[in-house]
Amino acid sequence: MRFASETSSGGVLEQLFLLGDVPGVLWTPLGADGGRPLIAMGHGGGQDKKASSMVSLARRFVAECGFAVVAVDAPSHGDRPEHAEFSRIATEYEARLVAGGGLAPLIVDFQALVVREIVPEWQTVLDAVQKLSHVGTGPVGYWGVSLGCVIGAPLVAAEPRVRAAVLGLSGAEVSAEAAARITVPVEFLVQWDDERVPRTQSLALFDAFASTEKTLHANPGGHGEVPGFETESTLRFFARHLA
Amino acid sequence: MRFASETSSGGVLEQLFLLGDVPGVLWTPLGADGGRPLIAMGHGGGQDKKASSMVSLARRFVAECGFAVVAVDAPSHGDRPEHAEFSRIATEYEARLVAGGGLAPLIVDFQALVVREIVPEWQTVLDAVQKLSHVGTGPVGYWGVSLGCVIGAPLVAAEPRVRAAVLGLSGAEVSAEAAARITVPVEFLVQWDDERVPRTQSLALFDAFASTEKTLHANPGGHGEVPGFETESTLRFFARHLA
Repeated sequence: MRFASETSSGGVLEQLFLLGDVPGVLWTPLGADGGRPLIAMGHGGGQDKKASSMVSLARRFVAECGFAVVAVDAPSHGDRPEHAEFSRIATEYEARLVAGGGLAPLIVDFQALVVREIVPEWQTVLDAVQKLSHVGTGPVGYWGVSLGCVIGAPLVAAEPRVRAAVLGLSGAEVSAEAAARITVPVEFLVQWDDERVPRTQSLALFDAFASTEKTLHANPGGHGEVPGFETESTLRFFARHLA
Repeated sequence: MRFASETSSGGVLEQLFLLGDVPGVLWTPLGADGGRPLIAMGHGGGQDKKASSMVSLARRFVAECGFAVVAVDAPSHGDRPEHAEFSRIATEYEARLVAGGGLAPLIVDFQALVVREIVPEWQTVLDAVQKLSHVGTGPVGYWGVSLGCVIGAPLVAAEPRVRAAVLGLSGAEVSAEAAARITVPVEFLVQWDDERVPRTQSLALFDAFASTEKTLHANPGGHGEVPGFETESTLRFFARHLA
């Protein structure tokens, strides 16, 4: 794990790093020492590890909860090179979403890619970050919606360090199989008028989580219009389960 | 308005009152003076104004937000005498809910009773309570689930003093007409496995609110099993919209 740069503002230390060929960012309280809860954040499709919504949420986790937060670029995103298979699937998926028609084969391909490459990659990131003295081996939470949910659901299902997750903006067809293996508390975000995820698919995915504690928050508006007050709820959810 | 008794504990003053023949309870911060937000709380069927879940939520509104809270017994509940029509409708409704079969005529009768008697009664209560110097004419919030939603939806629709409402555990067949006239922010509680309200009815009622800001919180479990963490959300919802 190589740190490329380090800046701080408002009591939050931001460290850019490279782990193998995976670029990431770690936010921690400035001057932090010792173990603390860690939030792994997965960005949306077309975004990257430093999307403004990610940065502002991460800074609140650090400043208000004292947590560490780590985010990495997904394949073909941010500072990573093109990943041929990821990009092929994403491009075809977008085309078929517009044209209508069989998403299932693409979903199968993508699920396999996530399990084979992206989940192990995330686990390596957690291993490395938790070895740092200002992060340590506290409980882990996962936050990710849309692509961050598609990647996150199999990660949360596979990774016992993850004790709670905020997921959303994804449907049963893509994520139900993983959801059925998730038993930790889940806060699940639904956009009532989501143009990418049919409402029935969203509700069916909420249904699929095996978690005893799961809570669905639905709000009017399209895929990208999650209201700001959900941030408060996210902070409290993780504070309740990780702190 | 006649006060029948007054007690205090933990910084919360509790005053039992009678307004005409309507028995109620008012909670305020001990020593409060001057106007403040007021929460009107509607209890569930078979409960009364001092149901333990009501009292504990009311005390938190007072202690944590500085609000005033008022609750009254619904007809045929608590310290009120039997209301022949209310009881007839409620008894037949329960019987048909078990046996299956036409709820619609009973719903029509009940909606008429609410509009004719219970909404004006609540408005008289708000008038009287807001004349008190330790309550004053601040913004009003309404909290009520189940019967408290059935009564509350027409009240919130009719009463411009109500600026935000937490409602839930009711369905479109009963409350959609009123919901379509509600434009204030609504937090709407759904129990995912509600044995009294079919899920599709709950979701259709959420759909029916005309409010620009409305948020649905769904949790696993039956009609009476709203999880405790929703209390935190309720407190923040009203603090955001009334304070």
